[in-house]
Amino acid sequence: MKAIKQFRVTKQTRIKDQDAEQKPLSGGDKTKDKEQVAELAAQIGVQQEILYAGQQHKLLVVLQGIDTSGKDGTVNGVFSGVNPQGIRIVSFKAPSSIELAHDYLWRVHQQVPQKGEIAVFNRSHYEDVLVTRVHDWIDDSECQRRYAQICDFERMLAETGTTIIKCLLHISKDEQRSRLQERIDDPSKHWKFDMQDLEERKYWDAYQQLFGQAMQATDADHAPWYLIPANSKTHRNLAIASIVLETLNDLKLALPEPKPELSGLVIK
Amino acid sequence: MKAIKQFRVTKQTRIKDQDAEQKPLSGGDKTKDKEQVAELAAQIGVQQEILYAGQQHKLLVVLQGIDTSGKDGTVNGVFSGVNPQGIRIVSFKAPSSIELAHDYLWRVHQQVPQKGEIAVFNRSHYEDVLVTRVHDWIDDSECQRRYAQICDFERMLAETGTTIIKCLLHISKDEQRSRLQERIDDPSKHWKFDMQDLEERKYWDAYQQLFGQAMQATDADHAPWYLIPANSKTHRNLAIASIVLETLNDLKLALPEPKPELSGLVIK
Repeated sequence: MKAIKQFRVTKQTRIKDQDAEQKPLSGGDKTKDKEQVAELAAQIGVQQEILYAGQQHKLLVVLQGIDTSGKDGTVNGVFSGVNPQGIRIVSFKAPSSIELAHDYLWRVHQQVPQKGEIAVFNRSHYEDVLVTRVHDWIDDSECQRRYAQICDFERMLAETGTTIIKCLLHISKDEQRSRLQERIDDPSKHWKFDMQDLEERKYWDAYQQLFGQAMQATDADHAPWYLIPANSKTHRNLAIASIVLETLNDLKLALPEPKPELSGLVIK
Repeated sequence: MKAIKQFRVTKQTRIKDQDAEQKPLSGGDKTKDKEQVAELAAQIGVQQEILYAGQQHKLLVVLQGIDTSGKDGTVNGVFSGVNPQGIRIVSFKAPSSIELAHDYLWRVHQQVPQKGEIAVFNRSHYEDVLVTRVHDWIDDSECQRRYAQICDFERMLAETGTTIIKCLLHISKDEQRSRLQERIDDPSKHWKFDMQDLEERKYWDAYQQLFGQAMQATDADHAPWYLIPANSKTHRNLAIASIVLETLNDLKLALPEPKPELSGLVIK
């Protein structure tokens, strides 16, 4: 089965029933799985060059997931085979005062991919219906209003030539514990650790519930959500690289036609 | 000798005396040279992570050179070992009408690296003293004024924490002919060929003369120019990767100190 079918969220998907440990794409041998990720990454690189040459399509990959779910690692693992010139990684942090003085989609809209480009959002406008709702900075009716606004925004992007992939990186609560503990136990990783992460961890259940709600409210064929079991880093990369490559393949990209006027031209 | 000494422009440097064929860093075996580029690229990747962790230093790499001199190839060859999240490639094309309605440094300033980041400029504000002067869109006194403005701008960037590397990719006129001819002879590369490139080629001597003038006018220890013999793509990457890595090493980057408050912390 294609990964874009296998991991696609459906109306029946319930996050709490999903086993974050599962590795349906794995061949059982981690080394070989890693080789396959590298192979997929290289193929993504080939497709990206054709995408760039054509200057028509735009690809937007949204990565969401709780702290330590592996968004940074995905960027490095899946997109490191791509010419850095053809890809733009956008990490959305806590908004600045100028950003807060605008609507929440303002800074996001500025960063969408242009023709021939792949943009990867490490966090995104979905933070504005997740962290904001978890902390009660917005109420439920505002949250519902934003779901509708996000649907409108993404439909506009799709209608104007953007192919959208949205991945939720799903890890178990125990996996997060172990990843946070690892950062604490290794002093060279202390810089990655923020006490705030422990505060956010207290809202685990609320986040899970909202992830599910946001996915159901904003999933669409032109802006599909994929739920990625992500306890295994290698399998996570395998799944996301497969989804990205299948999506690019489905675009049936081709190099521009040769230019007849160049035939036989000799440069002095 | 270190690459940052070997390729650094001096007051005595004359571009027309420089052999674009030379490969002083090559071990004589192309396969081994390529392995060394990959090794340097991986080390740049390691340094980049420490740069990112520290959130203090900013690195700006400016790539200039005539059409087909290999700016795109440098980006791919030298920076593909770096986590795409830690690097931003900015390709400056012909300015838009909004950009033209501002001073020429306006769009450039917006793209300078932030703390912890590496930014690579594929073309830059130097286009505004090269293509503009070659075509007589600005006169010599305006060009001199801009050199001074660029010196001021780059000194400000350096004084506020940006490390600057500027590379001129130097190819011979015959090498350009052969690279352009290759794009014509291979229909799958037609999309890379622009008739305008042939028009620009007519101004070869003027470009060479202005490259030399611009380098002399804007070279500084805090914003050094490197003249890279670039007829060989592998050697070009070897030289630029060496310069970037030596520059990063000279920063003596180190991971942030461990946080004492995390010692012994156990997460539930």
